[in-house]
Amino acid sequence: MSNKNVLVINSGSSSLKFAVIDSESGEALVSGLGECFGLPEATVEWKFNGEKSKEAITAPDNHHQEAINRIVKLMDELSLKETIVAVGHRIVHGGEKFTSTVRIDDAVLAEIENLSDLAPLHNPAGAKGIRAAMAAYPSLPQFAVFDTAFHQTMPQKAFTGAISHELYKEYGIRRYGFHGTSHYYVSREAAKMLNKPVEESNFITVHLGNGASVCAISNGESVDTSMGFTPLAGLMMGTRSGDLDPGIIEFLMKKGWTPEQVFETLNKKSGFLGVSGVTSDARGILEAMDEGHEGAKLAFEVFTYRVAKYIGSYMIPLSSLDAVIFTGGIGENALDIRSEILTNLALLGFVEDRAGNEAARFGAAGQIAESKLLGAKVLVVPTNEEFVIAKQSVELL
Amino acid sequence: MSNKNVLVINSGSSSLKFAVIDSESGEALVSGLGECFGLPEATVEWKFNGEKSKEAITAPDNHHQEAINRIVKLMDELSLKETIVAVGHRIVHGGEKFTSTVRIDDAVLAEIENLSDLAPLHNPAGAKGIRAAMAAYPSLPQFAVFDTAFHQTMPQKAFTGAISHELYKEYGIRRYGFHGTSHYYVSREAAKMLNKPVEESNFITVHLGNGASVCAISNGESVDTSMGFTPLAGLMMGTRSGDLDPGIIEFLMKKGWTPEQVFETLNKKSGFLGVSGVTSDARGILEAMDEGHEGAKLAFEVFTYRVAKYIGSYMIPLSSLDAVIFTGGIGENALDIRSEILTNLALLGFVEDRAGNEAARFGAAGQIAESKLLGAKVLVVPTNEEFVIAKQSVELL
Repeated sequence: MSNKNVLVINSGSSSLKFAVIDSESGEALVSGLGECFGLPEATVEWKFNGEKSKEAITAPDNHHQEAINRIVKLMDELSLKETIVAVGHRIVHGGEKFTSTVRIDDAVLAEIENLSDLAPLHNPAGAKGIRAAMAAYPSLPQFAVFDTAFHQTMPQKAFTGAISHELYKEYGIRRYGFHGTSHYYVSREAAKMLNKPVEESNFITVHLGNGASVCAISNGESVDTSMGFTPLAGLMMGTRSGDLDPGIIEFLMKKGWTPEQVFETLNKKSGFLGVSGVTSDARGILEAMDEGHEGAKLAFEVFTYRVAKYIGSYMIPLSSLDAVIFTGGIGENALDIRSEILTNLALLGFVEDRAGNEAARFGAAGQIAESKLLGAKVLVVPTNEEFVIAKQSVELL
Repeated sequence: MSNKNVLVINSGSSSLKFAVIDSESGEALVSGLGECFGLPEATVEWKFNGEKSKEAITAPDNHHQEAINRIVKLMDELSLKETIVAVGHRIVHGGEKFTSTVRIDDAVLAEIENLSDLAPLHNPAGAKGIRAAMAAYPSLPQFAVFDTAFHQTMPQKAFTGAISHELYKEYGIRRYGFHGTSHYYVSREAAKMLNKPVEESNFITVHLGNGASVCAISNGESVDTSMGFTPLAGLMMGTRSGDLDPGIIEFLMKKGWTPEQVFETLNKKSGFLGVSGVTSDARGILEAMDEGHEGAKLAFEVFTYRVAKYIGSYMIPLSSLDAVIFTGGIGENALDIRSEILTNLALLGFVEDRAGNEAARFGAAGQIAESKLLGAKVLVVPTNEEFVIAKQSVELL
């Protein structure tokens, strides 16, 4: 164990994930989750040395504070307190203000809260987590790592919507992109696997989880990504539609749907769940397919086809391609989904390495395909966003 | 002049285009436009042998009927009446019912009107034109050619939205695609240019006009297209946004925008007009760019980048690619826009033939680029939707 550990906090509106991460190895020494904040059944649970523990939390007026106080006490109980050199917070939206990880002071915290207009669910929750951690750990430096920051290198032609420029100037409506920490991490890991400086590497990174996004990376920098002004854009996801013909929304409203009904459907009843009619979970889709469920098969086909189309389109901002990289829960594990995406990429010369594809699962990295035509490999690289948060926090100390 | 001419009618809600087309050569013997229907200043104008004429039309209760009556009289005056063997109507929406051109009878007309739910502006206007033409020309057979028909060969994975399947079953919400007659025509012409049966040819057809769409054509059949449930989807256009992060609509509504304001903006104030802040017209954009206008330059970059990304993504449904085909007002003429799209396609091996690109304008077809990597050419093919309407009508006689 190094003596530079970081307490990583990901604070949501009614939950809070945490972990103590070794900033050199990336190992999680302890990890846990507080949930049901605001409800009588609020709890904090954690895992340490393979053992799980769970406790109720009270003080219903501020469960975020209460949970963090319990976590600080836990650090003492586990003899980790002295090893923790910083607190790193995952913050969803950094707008155009934050282009990299920053040390948090009052001005930064105020900016994060200012950006709540762009991320009304996430940024206020993130700020709550910061305030609670500052109160519980006043002596420790705190850092904010933004989901959007890595994408701030996108050129204007990629981040500009095909809509009125006034909407950008007045409201900041443009493509921001999310999952930046993941796209950043797997591109760095892939460069190592290819023995090539990341600053000279071009990648298409494909993060497929319950949320999903694709990123084009030129010379190590994000130049386009599929999530947009909000995380609803781009790929089909577990319950989200991704990009949509806006005329569908107009049609539904003319049929009497309220905005709430429309956006509830697009956020929570679309994607895998909506198309299949069965489940939002990729494993469930694959199981139902095996049992002959037609909706599940259609969801599988629509999803894989759309991912492949995004990969095809992200050839455009790149001058050459070193690798397509799969990551995220689905990208790291779902053999058949990766295989079908590769089949869809046949015109571009991609040929699956079946043994490689079977081997690169459950945390194992590896090469699963190649396109001799484009001189590009296809890799699986498990993501580790918490490691990035820990490492960047320590680097800024 | 052959003796098989077709009166082609494209009836809008307040206007009506017409032409008499030689079904063998495609030549327009006379063409004209009725406009301002419903207003006191309603007129019909036409061009015959290079000469323009214009007349007011009265009878304000049914300008569609009055315009068609005037056109029928004109046929007599121009000694064309005996040569006309059919009336061909361009109809926007054929839903899942019409997969090809059909002869119109009462049942067909009723179906076209039934589909008004999917095309509330266009199908009622088309039906009005049919009724008027039937009344004025009771002895002539009438045919309906649908914008959507060519795309009915799309596989389910391409036409299924990443949304609730219930929306398809209840309302018919799916991808239909438009511009079908244009994508059909230029793919047939391109196959002739390449001396290859269209049934064995794979194309990406790129129709860029004030409306714009891309189509992937496999063995002569449409397998994907960028317009969707409505013509608002897909590419950035003159005033339309194309595909959009639905979260932007939710955000604007939370800011107090009404649905009418949102969809007015997305349909009429977006695209070239919205991004540039200057004009919806591609020529105007290019002129303003020459004068150093930054908004125009941004609109040019966003548009060409997005077209190239669509071309990249449409490699996916094809097993090989014979040609990318440009057509439509912009696609047939805008040298610099085509050139920039080709530059964006560099990773896929496309190299512009500058002389070829300069030659293929103002009605001239030709090859403008090639990708040795993919074994694909890039062609310009002027479209002629009226010719298709005339030819298919005569074939069904």
